[in-house]
Amino acid sequence: MAEVKNKQVVLKDYVTGFLKESDLDLVENTITLKLPEGSNEILLKNLYLSCDPFMRNLMSDIGILEKFLPYAPGSPLFGYGVAKVLESGHPDYKKGDLVWGFTKWEEYSLVPSSRILFKIEHTDVPLSYYTGILGMPGMTAYAGFFEVGLPKKGEKVFVSAASGAVDLLKNKFGFDDAFNYKEEPDLDAALKRYFPEGIDIYFENVGGKTLDAVLLNMRVHGRIVVCGMISQYNRAQPEGVTNLGNLIMKRIRMQGLAVTDYYPMYHKLVEYVVPKIKEEKIVYVEDIAEGLENGPAALVGLFNGRNVGKQVLVLARE
Amino acid sequence: MAEVKNKQVVLKDYVTGFLKESDLDLVENTITLKLPEGSNEILLKNLYLSCDPFMRNLMSDIGILEKFLPYAPGSPLFGYGVAKVLESGHPDYKKGDLVWGFTKWEEYSLVPSSRILFKIEHTDVPLSYYTGILGMPGMTAYAGFFEVGLPKKGEKVFVSAASGAVDLLKNKFGFDDAFNYKEEPDLDAALKRYFPEGIDIYFENVGGKTLDAVLLNMRVHGRIVVCGMISQYNRAQPEGVTNLGNLIMKRIRMQGLAVTDYYPMYHKLVEYVVPKIKEEKIVYVEDIAEGLENGPAALVGLFNGRNVGKQVLVLARE
Repeated sequence: MAEVKNKQVVLKDYVTGFLKESDLDLVENTITLKLPEGSNEILLKNLYLSCDPFMRNLMSDIGILEKFLPYAPGSPLFGYGVAKVLESGHPDYKKGDLVWGFTKWEEYSLVPSSRILFKIEHTDVPLSYYTGILGMPGMTAYAGFFEVGLPKKGEKVFVSAASGAVDLLKNKFGFDDAFNYKEEPDLDAALKRYFPEGIDIYFENVGGKTLDAVLLNMRVHGRIVVCGMISQYNRAQPEGVTNLGNLIMKRIRMQGLAVTDYYPMYHKLVEYVVPKIKEEKIVYVEDIAEGLENGPAALVGLFNGRNVGKQVLVLARE
Repeated sequence: MAEVKNKQVVLKDYVTGFLKESDLDLVENTITLKLPEGSNEILLKNLYLSCDPFMRNLMSDIGILEKFLPYAPGSPLFGYGVAKVLESGHPDYKKGDLVWGFTKWEEYSLVPSSRILFKIEHTDVPLSYYTGILGMPGMTAYAGFFEVGLPKKGEKVFVSAASGAVDLLKNKFGFDDAFNYKEEPDLDAALKRYFPEGIDIYFENVGGKTLDAVLLNMRVHGRIVVCGMISQYNRAQPEGVTNLGNLIMKRIRMQGLAVTDYYPMYHKLVEYVVPKIKEEKIVYVEDIAEGLENGPAALVGLFNGRNVGKQVLVLARE
């Protein structure tokens, strides 16, 4: 059986503090491009890998997010990606299928069929979009905003950590306004300036001091969709949030979101977003890095605001 | 017109840190027991006053709970109580009516008819109960548990700051278990012992370190009903809560409760609780202090665990 080379990005050891490129290693392994007899696994050729902040959690010995299995030092990272099925031991998938879901940071992966793998039906949009707007991040935004946030017409929405330059957010993405928190010495004052009547829905990706400032500026019956707390993932000890008393008098609902709960309604995202992409009613920007060897830098870049748009790593274009 | 003496408990000055009896003063004023011509106010004889933790918030210059008018130094405290209508300028109330709602810490009060005043229909239960189980605290428990907590059969519920001795909670009130947090050096370990499978509903009255320990022990899809944060009210700076990351992976809903939102369904509480009181299916304990002069001590006692059961102050028994 033909063995081929299989480059991988592996975690050297558990990480404390800020992720550095030197925490990751590029190694070369081999893989047999043939399923073992009787296996119901799926053999994938990875095309696009998604760089996602949650991956940092899985690099801690004990993550901020309990009960989520961390990466094993010496083993390749895993995460979301787009792949092509080379061989399938499972009846739901067949050779040549394009899928998105959980795969590993390597050229070829053998994954159990129990893993989350969605078949890609629409190939008239860029395949890489299934790492972002049509993948896990898109589903997170869709479920968080519509299913948890329950927006009503006219409400004011604040999203933290909307990647990209302020000009880009305002002129290209169509946000009413945007600011760079690094240029705002007083976040509370900034929010009061941008939201003089307060915030109805806060899409929380940051945590810590940002959450504290937002709590002061929420409106009565506001909703906080807790999707991530990226400011905390690189810290040994999370920052304390001191303004939770606001939840009471303002009757705020603060609700954690795990996108996997909403995967059964993934078709709703596709139906909603694919036409909007084709009609160019949604603006979507990607930041593309090429090749596994550039993976560590791309991943580290998420945490210092280097990327503009969704950070994708291309391994192969089919 | 006959003027009568009117004893009052007044706030001396804004309070920082723990409330002390010396922060309050007993003064004697006079009041004319006659409504001004054309007034639509209501003249009340106060019978029972309720000692409630939220009153501490109103003694801070800037409260932990924004946008709630603090007490004015030199003026009597206000809060919930049971009173008898002496004269009414409003058609909904008439002389002799028994009411519960917002009144002041004094013998006689002139209150605007816009204040929350519920007419007491059932007088075959002790009137003082309308400061507690049949008043604001009862409505808070009812709405918080049933309307916000949405309990399902078999779920595990943790209530912080259930007043009273542990033996009382277990043997008299019928709790499955109870512990004194002051005797637990490690709250996380205590919760793991009492809730080996985790907590589905947390009725939050305490905040700070208690909330942090509970967050570690919540179950997936748990609900945190945020009703109060008594541990924070006496602090100049609130404690930081560090374990909010648990909201995400456990998809926890944390929701602030303001009981006033639920007053339109007050009749549901009465229908639910009055029969249970008469059939002795609900055990209810009061801690009774007599006379306005004992008001400051009764109020201060809330914050050092002195009272057993609902702290009531009796001014007159009709």
